[in-house]
Amino acid sequence: MAVPHPTRPRRLLPLSLGLFQGALLLFFAVFVTYDKPSAQAEDANLAANQLYGIFPLFQDIQVMLVVGLGLLLTFLPHYGLSALTHNFLLLNFSTQWALVLQGLLHRFHHSQVHLDLHNFLIAEFAAVTVLISVGAVLGRTSPCQLLVVAACEVPVYLASEWVIITNLGVLDVGGTITIHVFSCYFGLGVSKALFGVVQQPVHPKEIPIPRSDLMSLVGTLILWVFWPSFVAVLCQPGDAQHRAILNTLLAMSASAVTTVVVSSLLESDGKLSPGHLQNGSLAGGVAIGAVADMAVPPVAALALGSLSAVACVLGFKFLTPLLARKLTLQDQCGIHNLHGLPGILGAVASAVAILVASKDTSRSHFSQVSPAGGNASEVAWGQWGDRGAGGQALCQVAGLVVAIGISLLAGLLTGAALRLPYLAPPPERLCFDDSLYFKIQDQAESPGPGGTDEEGALALTERV
Amino acid sequence: MAVPHPTRPRRLLPLSLGLFQGALLLFFAVFVTYDKPSAQAEDANLAANQLYGIFPLFQDIQVMLVVGLGLLLTFLPHYGLSALTHNFLLLNFSTQWALVLQGLLHRFHHSQVHLDLHNFLIAEFAAVTVLISVGAVLGRTSPCQLLVVAACEVPVYLASEWVIITNLGVLDVGGTITIHVFSCYFGLGVSKALFGVVQQPVHPKEIPIPRSDLMSLVGTLILWVFWPSFVAVLCQPGDAQHRAILNTLLAMSASAVTTVVVSSLLESDGKLSPGHLQNGSLAGGVAIGAVADMAVPPVAALALGSLSAVACVLGFKFLTPLLARKLTLQDQCGIHNLHGLPGILGAVASAVAILVASKDTSRSHFSQVSPAGGNASEVAWGQWGDRGAGGQALCQVAGLVVAIGISLLAGLLTGAALRLPYLAPPPERLCFDDSLYFKIQDQAESPGPGGTDEEGALALTERV
Amino acid sequence: MAVPHPTRPRRLLPLSLGLFQGALLLFFAVFVTYDKPSAQAEDANLAANQLYGIFPLFQDIQVMLVVGLGLLLTFLPHYGLSALTHNFLLLNFSTQWALVLQGLLHRFHHSQVHLDLHNFLIAEFAAVTVLISVGAVLGRTSPCQLLVVAACEVPVYLASEWVIITNLGVLDVGGTITIHVFSCYFGLGVSKALFGVVQQPVHPKEIPIPRSDLMSLVGTLILWVFWPSFVAVLCQPGDAQHRAILNTLLAMSASAVTTVVVSSLLESDGKLSPGHLQNGSLAGGVAIGAVADMAVPPVAALALGSLSAVACVLGFKFLTPLLARKLTLQDQCGIHNLHGLPGILGAVASAVAILVASKDTSRSHFSQVSPAGGNASEVAWGQWGDRGAGGQALCQVAGLVVAIGISLLAGLLTGAALRLPYLAPPPERLCFDDSLYFKIQDQAESPGPGGTDEEGALALTERV
Repeated sequence: MAVPHPTRPRRLLPLSLGLFQGALLLFFAVFVTYDKPSAQAEDANLAANQLYGIFPLFQDIQVMLVVGLGLLLTFLPHYGLSALTHNFLLLNFSTQWALVLQGLLHRFHHSQVHLDLHNFLIAEFAAVTVLISVGAVLGRTSPCQLLVVAACEVPVYLASEWVIITNLGVLDVGGTITIHVFSCYFGLGVSKALFGVVQQPVHPKEIPIPRSDLMSLVGTLILWVFWPSFVAVLCQPGDAQHRAILNTLLAMSASAVTTVVVSSLLESDGKLSPGHLQNGSLAGGVAIGAVADMAVPPVAALALGSLSAVACVLGFKFLTPLLARKLTLQDQCGIHNLHGLPGILGAVASAVAILVASKDTSRSHFSQVSPAGGNASEVAWGQWGDRGAGGQALCQVAGLVVAIGISLLAGLLTGAALRLPYLAPPPERLCFDDSLYFKIQDQAESPGPGGTDEEGALALTERV
Repeated sequence: MAVPHPTRPRRLLPLSLGLFQGALLLFFAVFVTYDKPSAQAEDANLAANQLYGIFPLFQDIQVMLVVGLGLLLTFLPHYGLSALTHNFLLLNFSTQWALVLQGLLHRFHHSQVHLDLHNFLIAEFAAVTVLISVGAVLGRTSPCQLLVVAACEVPVYLASEWVIITNLGVLDVGGTITIHVFSCYFGLGVSKALFGVVQQPVHPKEIPIPRSDLMSLVGTLILWVFWPSFVAVLCQPGDAQHRAILNTLLAMSASAVTTVVVSSLLESDGKLSPGHLQNGSLAGGVAIGAVADMAVPPVAALALGSLSAVACVLGFKFLTPLLARKLTLQDQCGIHNLHGLPGILGAVASAVAILVASKDTSRSHFSQVSPAGGNASEVAWGQWGDRGAGGQALCQVAGLVVAIGISLLAGLLTGAALRLPYLAPPPERLCFDDSLYFKIQDQAESPGPGGTDEEGALALTERV
Repeated sequence: MAVPHPTRPRRLLPLSLGLFQGALLLFFAVFVTYDKPSAQAEDANLAANQLYGIFPLFQDIQVMLVVGLGLLLTFLPHYGLSALTHNFLLLNFSTQWALVLQGLLHRFHHSQVHLDLHNFLIAEFAAVTVLISVGAVLGRTSPCQLLVVAACEVPVYLASEWVIITNLGVLDVGGTITIHVFSCYFGLGVSKALFGVVQQPVHPKEIPIPRSDLMSLVGTLILWVFWPSFVAVLCQPGDAQHRAILNTLLAMSASAVTTVVVSSLLESDGKLSPGHLQNGSLAGGVAIGAVADMAVPPVAALALGSLSAVACVLGFKFLTPLLARKLTLQDQCGIHNLHGLPGILGAVASAVAILVASKDTSRSHFSQVSPAGGNASEVAWGQWGDRGAGGQALCQVAGLVVAIGISLLAGLLTGAALRLPYLAPPPERLCFDDSLYFKIQDQAESPGPGGTDEEGALALTERV
């Protein structure tokens, strides 16, 4: 296992990361405090109730990002530890970075940044974009490169989210446009600029095996279960939140069934592809985000879930190979199929939903709280009031275009930056391999000094 | 891996499933809407609070069914992907099917079906029965056959639940009788009718290995942790719900310890059987359902948990082999030991609890909300008021008998239907094998075109 | 696999455990009831709300202890089933035992012990100490020995917690001193007394492999996600609880990043050690417990999280080998690095925080509910009022010293008791081996009677 590889600046990762932690401490020491405690007993009671409302959903989202998404990425059989760890590291780094940027940008009141659970959640949403984007280059990038992606993507996300939600007044409570579409095209941009026009050969270690597919499927199921919390956490409490949960449940249920249908139909022998299942089952959750809290009928959620699963599976079967061939575009996890296509579908669906709903009846059912936590919703509603359903529908499409444009451009620039040599990209030979990043014990040859024949036989048995 | 197998109607699964999705869309489009939004701010507040009360429990139950139960079934070492996927597919299909049937049967108000989270939960409970039943035939049935089971079982469950809870007024808040006993005997009926009098030989792939036992045990632990949510979710909020949670915690704790005791005692060398542990630890949760919200003393919950674990382990050790030999009854997962025996124990315990409790003191402590969501509870209490404790105890037993009778009969009929040839039962040779249903990459022979000797050695190492 | 091993009193475990269950039933039958139901509708409403506040956190903690901690211990490749099962068994046994002792000690009102969810939670906290302590001797101890540890540790914990919280008035809402420091030194005492001065040789089966490291890392991530619930569950609802959650989130985030930094810096080739990651990421959660609900600035939480991760990783790298060499101290899971060092750091931090906070401003922000559920908080605050910040800081340090002293002494005595021969310690040859405690099927040699060549090849493929 002691594979020798060229000396590279191994200290770069810990040093830069350590420097960042130091700067973070400084920033927090100078600027950040907690919200003032509630002065009144009545307020305290209210605060406790609000906490009980948001905290279980927050925990659900944490499970999704740390455990669910991490496991989903373990489909590479020799890269499980790295996938899980890089995902975990990026989540923490990006959340901290987003907290700093958010503090600088939005939350200066009396020269102090006030931190509460809502802020933290918003920062995690920024981190989600990074976790999705790096799926495009999973296994062929070093942690240093991933941190550069995070460092670049978080500020661009915050800016684009500000443009789309606060300025354009786009309605997107579940992050279909601002998170999924954005992060997908950012990731594709990074991949394109990083790998250029050289088509990557199929690596022997990038082929899943049943055991790694199983772990990855468990990750999918965890994401599937908790997705309603992700979509509904920022909704207005009450009816809108209830509706968002139900719409998400319906969309994901339809996705799961439709994925099995389409995947079976596409293969000549009717077998399922594990990759289709791992991704297609979640497509409905991506698409429903933009319409989840609108007063759409339940059938719309079902239809959107089915359609997005169809798009996702067809994407895996036809579009990804096509893009790889024609554009030499590498998309390791198929983020374009899970986040790009369903995200576009969802954005279009939100425009259609707004056009279809007669303005007077639907108005009172709509609700949205801007992820920025401000009163952007008021702004959006005010704007819709001014601009009418047609205008609002146009805005949704404009938001989609802006998200794709900004993210693709920023992604390409970021990807170009990743080509800097001292970021230690893994050599082709050691891509998709935990042993490049982890001290892994070599145990296969002999059962060790204390081993007897019996133990050797036992070890062999257990190896099954 | 390219195992050739006889051409069978591979298109049946996706076509029938796709047709079902289409019909579902049509049904939802015509009939289903969400509940009207709360007109008043006060009502909206109340609605939000009710959502906060039920949603975390709902998520717990989703984790149980999708992740916990799915993992529990991965004890078959070469059938993990199929077990997890079929469980997931059946859950979604059955829930949708139950939503349709429920809509048709119960909820026509003003010609529209109103959908809310409570409805969805009830539909999932119907789906649970399917997930339990198919445990009896796991690994020897095709997805098509499993869908037929689901299609038949859900309506029968809804009918039997209506008879038992609404008509007979049986108290069974945790589904001991209506869910566990029912689904167990339904599954055994299916198995008996499907496999007939031919004793199935032991298949080389149905023997668990340590790795698959470990995954399965993780599934057990997830089920164990969240079981109180399953039992308590339909209880009256407040004391009854609190009591249901505590009773379940005590019963499951006693089950866990007792399982270790009994399993160790049964083996000559004092070793534990993983299968006993995976099932026995949960037996208390099955049994406690019918008495969980009653004003029984804590010791009753402990005793019931211990007793049901004893029954479960003894069932695995003696009854399952006996049934296989005498009745050629195949029970792959041992559902009779986990759901049948503890369910019967629980039903009897509920009758005893009612007899023991002096009517006047216990009356005010009892509470139950009918899973059907109606005011069946009022009915049941009214009936008890009329019929006295003896009458109510008799009703509990009658409910048990009805559940066993209906389920066994319907299961036998369903199993007979499964013998239809075009449902593509797996050939014996390919039972318990993921490769029949999944496109699995063949990777063992060579490390691929880009592989070097070094990588070959590495791959060999990792293979451990 | 049929390894013959010396006949030992195999019946001891089930018999003693069965006896305990019997005694528990008796105790519960005579003494324990549930809390009286709320007489008033208003009270019932309040009770329901309180349940909604605590129950989701309680479930989170259950997941941590049963699934997260269990998986964390599966880093031993051939000991996964045993690690998971012993953890599960000990949790249940210790919780029941703590319920009995608590009942005897604290809760005699009108000769009856009233059981509610809060009690149950406190009993689980007592069980946590056992689960942590046995990490020091994982794999080299029999279940009988582990039960003796549990039987001894729970009463000592309850006594020490009473001294530290109720008598000394130490502030420690997250159990940094009372749980983590206590259980660490108890475990080390047990290990020292049990293994004496004989240095244990490195066992071939105690070396993790990538697959087991991956499972263990999943356990870490589950613990990481739910840790805020563990720290905050006993806080005063409202601001203090909100602050405790945020402080824990910040500390754990800093721990995760810092662990990567330090682990990379320590290795010459910049690789990460899976063991560092599995433990260091959690160190912040251990340390933050004593200050979580205090009005410390956010930067303090970040700094404490970073520092404790540094301490943890350095401990693994330098201190554990040193202790093994100089003191022949065996610490299988490195509990001194995860619970000891960060716990001491956290205790010192709490003293510093109290000194730094100007008393008048901070006083109103502080809050704590004694784990004993009484009004110890009042007592503590009263005492602080009397003794001033300096006195309270001294108390924190005194609490630390008391925890270390009591636990070390009691641990040594317990470890001596474990040397009794009839407790069936595993022979060296069969340490770290599931086959000693589980009936495991031997399947490697042949695919069984029904197997064809094709299946043999298939099995070989799947084995990867």
